[in-house]
Amino acid sequence: MKAPGLPLDRRSVSEFTATRLSIYVRCLAALEADGVAHVSSKDFARRFDLNSAQIRKDLATFGEFGVRGVGYEVSELKRHLTSILGLDRTRRVAIIGAGHLGQALADYGGFRSGGFSIAALFDNDAGKIGMKTRTGVDVRDVADLSRIVERDAIEIAVLAVPAAAAAEVARRCVAAGLKAILNFAPVRWNAPPGVRVKNVDLKINLETLAFYIPNAPTKGAPA
Amino acid sequence: MKAPGLPLDRRSVSEFTATRLSIYVRCLAALEADGVAHVSSKDFARRFDLNSAQIRKDLATFGEFGVRGVGYEVSELKRHLTSILGLDRTRRVAIIGAGHLGQALADYGGFRSGGFSIAALFDNDAGKIGMKTRTGVDVRDVADLSRIVERDAIEIAVLAVPAAAAAEVARRCVAAGLKAILNFAPVRWNAPPGVRVKNVDLKINLETLAFYIPNAPTKGAPA
Repeated sequence: MKAPGLPLDRRSVSEFTATRLSIYVRCLAALEADGVAHVSSKDFARRFDLNSAQIRKDLATFGEFGVRGVGYEVSELKRHLTSILGLDRTRRVAIIGAGHLGQALADYGGFRSGGFSIAALFDNDAGKIGMKTRTGVDVRDVADLSRIVERDAIEIAVLAVPAAAAAEVARRCVAAGLKAILNFAPVRWNAPPGVRVKNVDLKINLETLAFYIPNAPTKGAPA
Repeated sequence: MKAPGLPLDRRSVSEFTATRLSIYVRCLAALEADGVAHVSSKDFARRFDLNSAQIRKDLATFGEFGVRGVGYEVSELKRHLTSILGLDRTRRVAIIGAGHLGQALADYGGFRSGGFSIAALFDNDAGKIGMKTRTGVDVRDVADLSRIVERDAIEIAVLAVPAAAAAEVARRCVAAGLKAILNFAPVRWNAPPGVRVKNVDLKINLETLAFYIPNAPTKGAPA
């Protein structure tokens, strides 16, 4: 197995591929926990309902993994992909907007573990600045964003502001030196070059679930 | 083009495939808005960084789409997939838990449009029951869950409760006749047969975004 060699232009990798890598790491962690040492590309592909050519293509971007006749070495592939995703170090996150969503995200376990930590929550409402969320995250004045981003080496902004405020808040994040923005606001805007924006689509979770509901409503019927 | 024919056992379709169908519909809507009438399976695959064999396999489960040499007819394929996902009718959703997350979800545009409507928000806290969210969703007593699910033909439960309460609340949802549960609580439990649970993983959005940040922190540096 060869470690990733050539410097890779990450911008050339699609968001679909990056998301699949995250999913692969979760699956490899589950296999590792089950004591599985090796997995064939065919079995690995089957878990994701993908074909093995697709898996090989996804991985080939980052190096040569897998051995013919043996498959992938689970722990080693997991370690490589974790490193490729940059999850082997902690990135600091600022959440902008201390409304219901911002507070929920600040207290969300997944945003405070395994590669991420919440550095601060920001708002422009004097009534919220100075308070703490349930788990103890401080609400800071968004006027101090640049200073705190610099001081605390924050790398990611999470936008949890109303749609009308999102473009202006995103501009402030970019001015503060942030180059990665996770946008929960239901609005799209043009990010300047060198800034990556990911728009979160919560509805797709409902759609995926709805697919499994029979078409005739089964109102109140017993199982 | 042939419409889906044989009755399909939806349980045999993986969540990965169902999610891809949702994403395909979004892409087809974007193509339609751009006035594109046809798309080749190769170009369609390229948009998702998938190979065209994978796209054909995903679609083949549901019927025969596409014409050799012409590709997919954008509006027709979108209409078929929308129907397959069941998004051509409105499903009623109940959110359980009127904390920050539950209120944010009740007011989230994506949960109140295109195939879904929020019927009610439930809690067991007397201090919250009777209030309204910012956009006017009523907070009801969770003791009335069964009655309201039956009366309002609610089909989907969204769990926005603390981890410690999730399994018990899920049991109440199942007892109320709900067969689809979208779980935001950071906990897993065994759903009874015939009940579909989708666990929401917000962290994967951060991971996908973090992939694009250069490995050396660029603390406060100008673009």
